Amino acid sequence: MIFDMQQRTLITHTPESVGQTVTISGPIDARRDMGKIVFLDIRDRTGLLQVVCIPGVPVISPPSTPGGEGGRGGERSAGIGLKDVRPGFVLRISGLIKPRSEKAINPRIATGRIEMEAKEITVLATAQPFPFDATKEVGLDTYLDHLPFTLRTDRARAIFKVQSEIVEAFRAFLRSKDFTEFQAPKLVGGSTEGGANVFTVDYFDKKAFLAQSPQFYKQIMVGVFERVFTVGNVYRAELHATSRHINEYTSMDLEMGFIEDHHDIMRVENDILAYMVEQLKKSCAKEFELLGATLPVVPQNIPFVKLREAQEILKKEFGIDCIGEPDLDPEHERKLCEWSAKTHNSDFLFVTHYPTKKRPMYTFPDPEDPEFTRSFDLLFRGLEITTGGQRIHDYDFLKSNIAKWGLNPDHFTYYLEAFQYGMPPEGGLAIGLERLTAKFLGIENVKEATLFPRDITRIDDRLSNA
Amino acid sequence: MIFDMQQRTLITHTPESVGQTVTISGPIDARRDMGKIVFLDIRDRTGLLQVVCIPGVPVISPPSTPGGEGGRGGERSAGIGLKDVRPGFVLRISGLIKPRSEKAINPRIATGRIEMEAKEITVLATAQPFPFDATKEVGLDTYLDHLPFTLRTDRARAIFKVQSEIVEAFRAFLRSKDFTEFQAPKLVGGSTEGGANVFTVDYFDKKAFLAQSPQFYKQIMVGVFERVFTVGNVYRAELHATSRHINEYTSMDLEMGFIEDHHDIMRVENDILAYMVEQLKKSCAKEFELLGATLPVVPQNIPFVKLREAQEILKKEFGIDCIGEPDLDPEHERKLCEWSAKTHNSDFLFVTHYPTKKRPMYTFPDPEDPEFTRSFDLLFRGLEITTGGQRIHDYDFLKSNIAKWGLNPDHFTYYLEAFQYGMPPEGGLAIGLERLTAKFLGIENVKEATLFPRDITRIDDRLSNA
Repeated sequence: MIFDMQQRTLITHTPESVGQTVTISGPIDARRDMGKIVFLDIRDRTGLLQVVCIPGVPVISPPSTPGGEGGRGGERSAGIGLKDVRPGFVLRISGLIKPRSEKAINPRIATGRIEMEAKEITVLATAQPFPFDATKEVGLDTYLDHLPFTLRTDRARAIFKVQSEIVEAFRAFLRSKDFTEFQAPKLVGGSTEGGANVFTVDYFDKKAFLAQSPQFYKQIMVGVFERVFTVGNVYRAELHATSRHINEYTSMDLEMGFIEDHHDIMRVENDILAYMVEQLKKSCAKEFELLGATLPVVPQNIPFVKLREAQEILKKEFGIDCIGEPDLDPEHERKLCEWSAKTHNSDFLFVTHYPTKKRPMYTFPDPEDPEFTRSFDLLFRGLEITTGGQRIHDYDFLKSNIAKWGLNPDHFTYYLEAFQYGMPPEGGLAIGLERLTAKFLGIENVKEATLFPRDITRIDDRLSNA
Repeated sequence: MIFDMQQRTLITHTPESVGQTVTISGPIDARRDMGKIVFLDIRDRTGLLQVVCIPGVPVISPPSTPGGEGGRGGERSAGIGLKDVRPGFVLRISGLIKPRSEKAINPRIATGRIEMEAKEITVLATAQPFPFDATKEVGLDTYLDHLPFTLRTDRARAIFKVQSEIVEAFRAFLRSKDFTEFQAPKLVGGSTEGGANVFTVDYFDKKAFLAQSPQFYKQIMVGVFERVFTVGNVYRAELHATSRHINEYTSMDLEMGFIEDHHDIMRVENDILAYMVEQLKKSCAKEFELLGATLPVVPQNIPFVKLREAQEILKKEFGIDCIGEPDLDPEHERKLCEWSAKTHNSDFLFVTHYPTKKRPMYTFPDPEDPEFTRSFDLLFRGLEITTGGQRIHDYDFLKSNIAKWGLNPDHFTYYLEAFQYGMPPEGGLAIGLERLTAKFLGIENVKEATLFPRDITRIDDRLSNA
């Protein structure tokens, strides 16, 4: 790498250096004392390596006050010896890479056939004793209270590696299909979805709001680029304290013009998910194994049922009578996914045609039955991870619908301008990144799949000086 | 494409279909009447095509109320004829692709050697007459007041196409160098950089803030993944009304462990910029041409000077005496870039070693001269586009520095936990996406390079129902 100036060897490359002296850097993951010999497991971003330290190996300590009178570090001894280094200490170690004896081979790590014999150790940073063993079961609250420490486990790293690959797959697929990425504002002058559950911001001498979705902006951008996507935070000021809700989450949004109806949008999502699974298979096989998670099979055609049909299924198959209700509750979603898995061998199920009155004013009513909309939710392993559908693209109809929903069209003139000057038939969807991550990985609580989750009580107020 | 169900031919592919009847879709970009024959320029996401409409060509109108009693659209005539269609109308046109006569060839468009003879026109959406000609010079306020309309120009499309490619290049380069992407929260319990210029949010029964940067989170994440990046909105409640400031902007952030000093971070930025320029050369040559913009040359090694040296240069070369001042003002930045271009043939210049007292408490003091820091700004064509540097990674030193800055370490325990349990020497930087876009493209006001800019008076309050 051009900017790796320290001639550091990454641990993943150490097996290629048997017989050579190389330098590695990383924190101590574990320490084992075997009489006078000390074994250190050193971790870097690429792997884990066992380092054998024989008594007398030179240990160079950092200056006691970095930024003080010392040089670039490492010149003066602050009295740290091999006896003092413990997990968390960050070291640079030069040493000889040697094959292990046959019986010392560790098949569970990639470098398990070799080890390093330390020749010189430099302490780059010290660490206090760990407050608890984060690799053991700790309660969710403790876990979340100490994320700067608890995120440093194989489990947490695996979750957020997978999350980063999910986002990348979403973008890469859409880029390959001519979608243009855009940056949506999060600060808005009006609340986007109707006023409830919105966070208020003091914006100079007036009030602003945190956007609940980039909905209006992505529709505006269809008029510019025809196919667009954006990934960013959205906000829900919901008082819920459940395993499914967080107050700030990452929404993966797309919107596209020239569709026939909502089935075109469902087709895009089906293809995105198939691509995502293929990519995760390649990039995150180790992470899925570590987490004991199974990649879903994405059917060529994810099954779909209308809400009314879904309610019939719930009655017939599970004896649950919710016919006529405007939405599904979490138990219904779980049961429908059971049905879908059993009947269609699919972890996914689209539910379409939610009632017109219960969807936002921009939702396209089905011309064949205008009481219901060309909208859909996607259920995945029992949980709703997407809402999407076709939108109303006709200016006059949209304007009259705004009034019909009891809202004032004069408050929407900016949004309406996109339709006033011509908008193709269009639609889109939003996928909740954290929920999708949780469901891919079999994680019960979405907070564990959210890097720094916000809920009613949790907002990192010890981060800073407020 | 799997989900293009309408057998639509993209305009970019029409030259391959000479002699065939195909169907295109898109809005009317321009209409020219030549006696009874009407020429329509149709635009889709891939290009522009001239369509010749002879009197009597069938025009199928949409149902008057979409979602009303009609079918999938296009069945009933609402009385729209060829005479009525004007720019903005969205059409689907089936027609014969024919070569143009030699003298009708238009070398300025990619389809300039062909045209379509319309056989059937379907009106997918109507449009009102345009309020003004957005391709002509309009004032910035008018432009910004009508973005849903004014973004539909070649100029605006080019700007935001380039912006999307800049973001992608940032991510692609860092991914190739083992950086892991993460999602940073924007809602924080404390203000990240010291308390001034922060937007306040009503967070249930307490106050929260909009993050001014993902600084603390990206440092925390170095302890998890060693090398990380994140792209997202950041907030500055500044009252400035200048061509350089916006209140919500997109920050491209990276942070990495195991550095020697700030020069490693500058090396990364140098390499990112070189990669970006290579990518833009490939993907956005047309856009740069359209905007009359010149891609910068990124030197193998961008020159760097210490702040004090920069001030000497300003005095010697430009007669500006600002020696001893803690920062550069915009005029100084412009002059230094002039100097850098002339002396080093570089559009870029790193200025390093800002005074310790003027930088945040986490900035690493230069051990050789602790009054100054291992920090840098990057100037590009006269404007600061990046701040970065090495951070303090030693727990005790950081904690004592927080107190020295007049802050209470007890309010930072969460952040400090990342250092308490071991943190490698590390640093990072942030690049302002909109400023970078503006400078790449020679755009005077950063608001024109911001998709939906927020300033003191502008926050889209006609978007919705607040």
